[in-house]
Amino acid sequence: MSLAAETLVDRAVRHVQAHIREHDLKVGDTLPGEGTFASQLGVSRAVMREAFGALAALRLLDVGNGRRARVGAIDGSVMGTSISHAVATAQVSTAQVWDVRRTLELRTVELAALNRTEEEAREIERLADEMAVSFDDPDRLVRTDIALHQAIAVASRNPLYQQIIRSFEPLMKEAVPAAWATRRTEEQRVSILDVHIGLARAITEGDGAKARNLVDAHFDASIADLFSET
Amino acid sequence: MSLAAETLVDRAVRHVQAHIREHDLKVGDTLPGEGTFASQLGVSRAVMREAFGALAALRLLDVGNGRRARVGAIDGSVMGTSISHAVATAQVSTAQVWDVRRTLELRTVELAALNRTEEEAREIERLADEMAVSFDDPDRLVRTDIALHQAIAVASRNPLYQQIIRSFEPLMKEAVPAAWATRRTEEQRVSILDVHIGLARAITEGDGAKARNLVDAHFDASIADLFSET
Repeated sequence: MSLAAETLVDRAVRHVQAHIREHDLKVGDTLPGEGTFASQLGVSRAVMREAFGALAALRLLDVGNGRRARVGAIDGSVMGTSISHAVATAQVSTAQVWDVRRTLELRTVELAALNRTEEEAREIERLADEMAVSFDDPDRLVRTDIALHQAIAVASRNPLYQQIIRSFEPLMKEAVPAAWATRRTEEQRVSILDVHIGLARAITEGDGAKARNLVDAHFDASIADLFSET
Repeated sequence: MSLAAETLVDRAVRHVQAHIREHDLKVGDTLPGEGTFASQLGVSRAVMREAFGALAALRLLDVGNGRRARVGAIDGSVMGTSISHAVATAQVSTAQVWDVRRTLELRTVELAALNRTEEEAREIERLADEMAVSFDDPDRLVRTDIALHQAIAVASRNPLYQQIIRSFEPLMKEAVPAAWATRRTEEQRVSILDVHIGLARAITEGDGAKARNLVDAHFDASIADLFSET
């Protein structure tokens, strides 16, 4: 790709972003086709096609299957791809990601206690109960553990927390089983379960301070489980 | 783009990600060319070119100007683009982004107090001092304010915080001037300045608890300034 072509693609990307702003478009609204933008800007369709590709990769556009491009919904998978890449290439350690998770979850549980709907509280309690009956099914236990943390982020009623917490999912799929594998005694496992059940109850009862304390203790224990050998 | 072609591009993207992992590549390491990957996978160069475009948009690859693609460094601008898009399309409010910033910066100042090098401490103090002499130059004041928050994130020595804080920059460029504009009296402006100078000193002195308290009070005031009319 020549430098000139790269600049044209960047310009095309900015033009589409400006179009979304100026027309006050919302998620799901359709955009003009690549040909229309290409004519407006006086660039080739190949350049516009590259720009749409970049915008689709960043999930600013939802481009599919022959139909018109639509404005995309914020999607934690974009940040998730960045984080997984950074960990795979040793730019960021799992312990550093866990510190960010802890910081964010100390707040999401507090907000969830404040803002959760009745239905969200029931879903969070249901997931905590499901963990209790999943002890002999490691896959289900891990899946339910991750789903519980995500349900709490949803109940914070702040979609940015929700998407950032979702972005940790690829890494959690590796690290959460590893943490559970270190919990060998019945006592250790019951203690982690009690934290999750207590957390669900605190959110239902609107007790943000109690929820925060439980998360603080939980991460102390989980980080010790995960990084005890490092 | 047909559904089949989309699946091929996704597969090509995953293949390049797997290549990075399996060869344990680090930032700046070169990758095989599009043609090599296309042959390995039995896909067309057009498919591989689209995959490289998506990986470049996500900054997993650094693709430039005719030379071989290299492994990209984690870059807050990817998340920054997501957040700006989400705010522009009313998926997330500025107040919600500010809540996430506050949550993260309560932690970055604490970590900076613990982990900053001597040089980082001097730079943070220098930026706080520069704010004090920038009162009559709004552009410089805002630029220095943003640079100070980013320097603190760097001094946390956790690159994930650093990149997430950087991702707020496009929004801060709009919201920080708006917040300063509401601070009309000399007293209000000096009080905000005192917070930043106190914060820099607390970080130099390694007093994380004091730094945290100052950030807490600062965000209370800033959020009040920004959202008093909403």
